[in-house]
Amino acid sequence: MVAPEYNTMVKAILFDLDDTLYDTSNQVEKARKNAVAAMVASGLEKPESEVKEQLESIVAHKGSNYGRHYNDLLRHYSISDRPKIVAAGVVAYHDTKNAYLVPKRDAISTLLGLRDQGYLIGLVTDGVPVKQWEKIIRLGLKDFFHCVIVTEDGKMQKPSPEAFLAAAKTLGAKPSECMIVGDRPDRDIRAGNLAKMTTVHLVGGKYSRMEPGSKDEIADHTINSLREILDLVKTI
Amino acid sequence: MVAPEYNTMVKAILFDLDDTLYDTSNQVEKARKNAVAAMVASGLEKPESEVKEQLESIVAHKGSNYGRHYNDLLRHYSISDRPKIVAAGVVAYHDTKNAYLVPKRDAISTLLGLRDQGYLIGLVTDGVPVKQWEKIIRLGLKDFFHCVIVTEDGKMQKPSPEAFLAAAKTLGAKPSECMIVGDRPDRDIRAGNLAKMTTVHLVGGKYSRMEPGSKDEIADHTINSLREILDLVKTI
Repeated sequence: MVAPEYNTMVKAILFDLDDTLYDTSNQVEKARKNAVAAMVASGLEKPESEVKEQLESIVAHKGSNYGRHYNDLLRHYSISDRPKIVAAGVVAYHDTKNAYLVPKRDAISTLLGLRDQGYLIGLVTDGVPVKQWEKIIRLGLKDFFHCVIVTEDGKMQKPSPEAFLAAAKTLGAKPSECMIVGDRPDRDIRAGNLAKMTTVHLVGGKYSRMEPGSKDEIADHTINSLREILDLVKTI
Repeated sequence: MVAPEYNTMVKAILFDLDDTLYDTSNQVEKARKNAVAAMVASGLEKPESEVKEQLESIVAHKGSNYGRHYNDLLRHYSISDRPKIVAAGVVAYHDTKNAYLVPKRDAISTLLGLRDQGYLIGLVTDGVPVKQWEKIIRLGLKDFFHCVIVTEDGKMQKPSPEAFLAAAKTLGAKPSECMIVGDRPDRDIRAGNLAKMTTVHLVGGKYSRMEPGSKDEIADHTINSLREILDLVKTI
């Protein structure tokens, strides 16, 4: 007796989180836009578009996990001691982020479909662990995965293959039995290829259309929506 | 012609925020309780009551604005590297805090009533300015006051009378024309008495029933609900 084809090769599917299971780029863009609008409405008397550009420059310089973007923004405009303006930005930013923190339309049904068919599913994401877990919890995804790995920094982070390999080991799957799904050629796809796993590039989000920097960044498959995975896994 | 009686003495009413305009004690209690329940449900295998007690002890020791209460809690139980548990606590805490961050039932109508009658109203609160402003914004109170003063630390904070005196000056009122309303005898009432203002003790919240430590902590008037101020100002 021959095992069903769809079960012979792929045993586990490892997902990226940001811009793969929810629309992070849009969420962050909307949150910053609303934060700027709220700060301008609360007394920062500058054109919104100019303030937004300045904020993006501060974020690019200090990183997205820096805690005082809005204070720096006011300092740039030589405005001091206006906690009301900072708070207006913080409130609008968090409320908007939470409003847009929802799984992509087909994320839950795809994950459920994969589980129903007996696949193991994992989540491999880089970032501050408590912050990534906050997202996972708010997205309602905390109980979906057979394995979750959050890499904070250092050599475990993508494009290193190590976190994917660790997830495969935890799930009891060989790399050749794993498929990875992510939006970033330079991180997810490169890490997956280095791990010798089947790589699937989900198009979408601000990093997904980057030109591949080398052949390691070229995915085995490209999809435009998560639900395509349900058919794709059966063909491999 | 004689000015109406209710306008002869009191010109401005200065409010405390926490446990005066919203029920802070209940909010914090519920938020910590739900945070503990979420952490236990996410893998902290200890009795909730014991964890809650331990958390209160950490908060008492580190202060409420310390950022790593839950990490310290896990460390107490020798649990390391479990960001999922910390995140579960963070999410439950913030969601609960926001759910209970609503003005007391009669706060808005009282503030509107005072404004309608021509009184100036001010807000004088101690705390981290951005955090206090976040509360003011989420409570929907940011446009209600003719003057808001948030004192972060040092000699301006209650029971120093300085912030109340600064608010009076901003509003163009003499101290004798000001009434202060607060829940804490040791902070609000003492500061108001030292400022030579009319003091009103709003009973409610965990600090309000403290025995007065000295005669400076005895208020001129005691009320059980904010709306009583509407009648009280007319009698002074």
